[in-house]
Amino acid sequence: MKKVVKFGGSSLASAEQFQKVGKIIRSDAARRYVVPSAPGKRFGGDTKVTDMLYGCYRLAEEGKDFRGALENIKARYMEIIEGLSLNLSMDEQFEEIAKNFQNKAGENYAASRGEYLNGIVMAEYLGFEFVDAAEVICFDEDGNFDAEKTDEVMSKRLEGLQQAVIPGFYGAKPDGSVKTFSRGGSDITGSLVAKAVHADLYENWTDVSGFLVTDPRIVKDPATISTITYREMRELSYMGATVLHEDAIFPLRREGIPINVRNTNRPEDPGTMIVESTCNKPKYTITGIGGKKGFASITIEKAMMNSEIGFGRKVLQVFEENGLSFEHTPSGIDTFTVYVHQSEFESKEQQVIAGLHRAVQPDLIELESDLALIAVVGRGMRRTRGTAGRIFSALAHAHVNVKMIDQGSSELNIIIGVENRDFETAIQAIYDIFVTAQI
Amino acid sequence: MKKVVKFGGSSLASAEQFQKVGKIIRSDAARRYVVPSAPGKRFGGDTKVTDMLYGCYRLAEEGKDFRGALENIKARYMEIIEGLSLNLSMDEQFEEIAKNFQNKAGENYAASRGEYLNGIVMAEYLGFEFVDAAEVICFDEDGNFDAEKTDEVMSKRLEGLQQAVIPGFYGAKPDGSVKTFSRGGSDITGSLVAKAVHADLYENWTDVSGFLVTDPRIVKDPATISTITYREMRELSYMGATVLHEDAIFPLRREGIPINVRNTNRPEDPGTMIVESTCNKPKYTITGIGGKKGFASITIEKAMMNSEIGFGRKVLQVFEENGLSFEHTPSGIDTFTVYVHQSEFESKEQQVIAGLHRAVQPDLIELESDLALIAVVGRGMRRTRGTAGRIFSALAHAHVNVKMIDQGSSELNIIIGVENRDFETAIQAIYDIFVTAQI
Repeated sequence: MKKVVKFGGSSLASAEQFQKVGKIIRSDAARRYVVPSAPGKRFGGDTKVTDMLYGCYRLAEEGKDFRGALENIKARYMEIIEGLSLNLSMDEQFEEIAKNFQNKAGENYAASRGEYLNGIVMAEYLGFEFVDAAEVICFDEDGNFDAEKTDEVMSKRLEGLQQAVIPGFYGAKPDGSVKTFSRGGSDITGSLVAKAVHADLYENWTDVSGFLVTDPRIVKDPATISTITYREMRELSYMGATVLHEDAIFPLRREGIPINVRNTNRPEDPGTMIVESTCNKPKYTITGIGGKKGFASITIEKAMMNSEIGFGRKVLQVFEENGLSFEHTPSGIDTFTVYVHQSEFESKEQQVIAGLHRAVQPDLIELESDLALIAVVGRGMRRTRGTAGRIFSALAHAHVNVKMIDQGSSELNIIIGVENRDFETAIQAIYDIFVTAQI
Repeated sequence: MKKVVKFGGSSLASAEQFQKVGKIIRSDAARRYVVPSAPGKRFGGDTKVTDMLYGCYRLAEEGKDFRGALENIKARYMEIIEGLSLNLSMDEQFEEIAKNFQNKAGENYAASRGEYLNGIVMAEYLGFEFVDAAEVICFDEDGNFDAEKTDEVMSKRLEGLQQAVIPGFYGAKPDGSVKTFSRGGSDITGSLVAKAVHADLYENWTDVSGFLVTDPRIVKDPATISTITYREMRELSYMGATVLHEDAIFPLRREGIPINVRNTNRPEDPGTMIVESTCNKPKYTITGIGGKKGFASITIEKAMMNSEIGFGRKVLQVFEENGLSFEHTPSGIDTFTVYVHQSEFESKEQQVIAGLHRAVQPDLIELESDLALIAVVGRGMRRTRGTAGRIFSALAHAHVNVKMIDQGSSELNIIIGVENRDFETAIQAIYDIFVTAQI
């Protein structure tokens, strides 16, 4: 049994947090590969080490004195080291960083030092081997990530190691210069390690006990999703939910390695399992509710449009020619509606309308703005009869005017259009009927 | 107050039916313009006069003796004339018809005589002036209907007449040769007369008390629709309901003349009013339920398709290039489904799939066949909250698996996809929740 465990910045902000992490790792011998982030905020108003590094490097680049700023960063690490009673000096590392800052080694290098140093502390604390990510995460000359080479180099390097700490967020180009991932940071490193060592599980430890059924800014204390499929996660993330970045999932999905999102501060919580597929019956009929505001709809009416071959294509071509992507195209009889992002549409409105008139000679074009789309997502909806009935009854009961409904293939997700002002009410109503009512 | 009244063939099949018609017309002095069809069937297994005329003319064309067949037709009229105790001889008319049949005057001419002769009988019976449709319904040299000329000629001809009978179904080309309407027959004549005289109402008298909420072959004795808008009617007719032909409505719709579909055998029934728009609150939330079987769906899955500009257009272009029109394109997140007629799609299936792979490189294409589409139509749905909720709860209760939902702009109509085998159950369930439950 091999587990790769990745810890976010808030899990490693202080010696106290390190101790929680240490306890988690030592409680399970399978937790053999550790991917740390840089120390995050210890309290509200605190500065993340990575941001301190950016600030410090800016001084260096501007030729100003950056020694004081670098000392502050060193103090952050020494506080952790001393708090953990480790016998570890960081003098050598900070001397090298100072030298490289002086030589303008670049922002990528500067930013990466937070993880690098934290990895050294973590390895010392756990008694694991430290493996510099620059050795095992490979970018090409142009700075593009090289997945194949990384997998080869990392597999070989980690093969002989019983336990290792590999800092997240960065790697190196063939000339040895450091390159960071643009987004998803340490999550990507963690998934690459999990892939390389053929892990049985990739644990992603954060400060939340997994993904929530819906946005906590809309619904108070929403329930946690116990199991979510990659597909459901992508659907929810598309509709605005904060989940793992696509790049952090892709390597694992191909290998069928499940991800477990856990809370360092509440290790007793099971968190959320992210899996390729599962016959695990979900706790609630729905897995999650996502949504976004700020859409506009363009409804085209024309008698007998359905028998006009090429009608839909011509309509969509007008949007394409104006550089607009569309979200949904629900249709009735003799009506065809196109949902677009309002912000993108506004400046092109008149060209689009003129284009539609030229292209398909509609009987009528109707515009509506300030619309929101809500996605109700869940593999459980397929096997539960009446999901749509419950959703629309709940919305009616909550006095929400449903502007649009779109459901493609059998109830895997249902898209609902409402007015912006009904957005929160609608999400709360759907949450209540499926989750609150069941608790 | 001017009303144009049109009577169908079954309303004029016998002297007894003529008497009902006479009573209807005499009971309202505004019923000044009468458009009769040819006599229809008197009983199951009977032959319509128009079909007798086709048969008779075929004999003439083949150089066979058609006199006996023509005598049978004459007998039909004489039965009516004698039953009404009219002092009217048809000898002259039948002599002329015999002569023209001999000279091969054409099928159009032959078919038109049913209405022509019935018009003469009706005019005599009512004491109204007979106006031959050949005088007032104008086609051009190529046989295309000339709306402008017809309106001009007919207005002028009817202007001075207090009351008139104008036979349905035919008109004439500039050379005087008879031309019939291809479809909609006497309904078109009736609406043209109503337009020309600027009627306040066009009454279309048939053998049913108006339009039914749904197909009586699916639901036993469905309720009658009291008021339907032109638009709702078009929507229901598109989804398979038998209503007035589009050509019979167009002239009236532009003039804002309402149509009243009535039952000659139950003149006490108010029938169905067809109007451009109405603030008349409908009796039921829904106006009608239509539907058709025999659809197939093609679901295309591709991650992040919504951000690909031109994706939908490329998909629809593949269908267009294969000469396929589509019915609906419901979409979820990362899925785009196209509903097509199964019969048209089957032979092109493989080309379409290959085309889709080339055009958009989908992750997955899923096909499903034997699907039915149901349209729930009604202006009342807009102002009634929870219509969608009621529909989908009713379907869940009836164990119907909803495959697709499509609702464009605010609940004017909702399209529901189900399996063919659930079609009747679904329609019955929707009927029951909105109509039976309310009675």
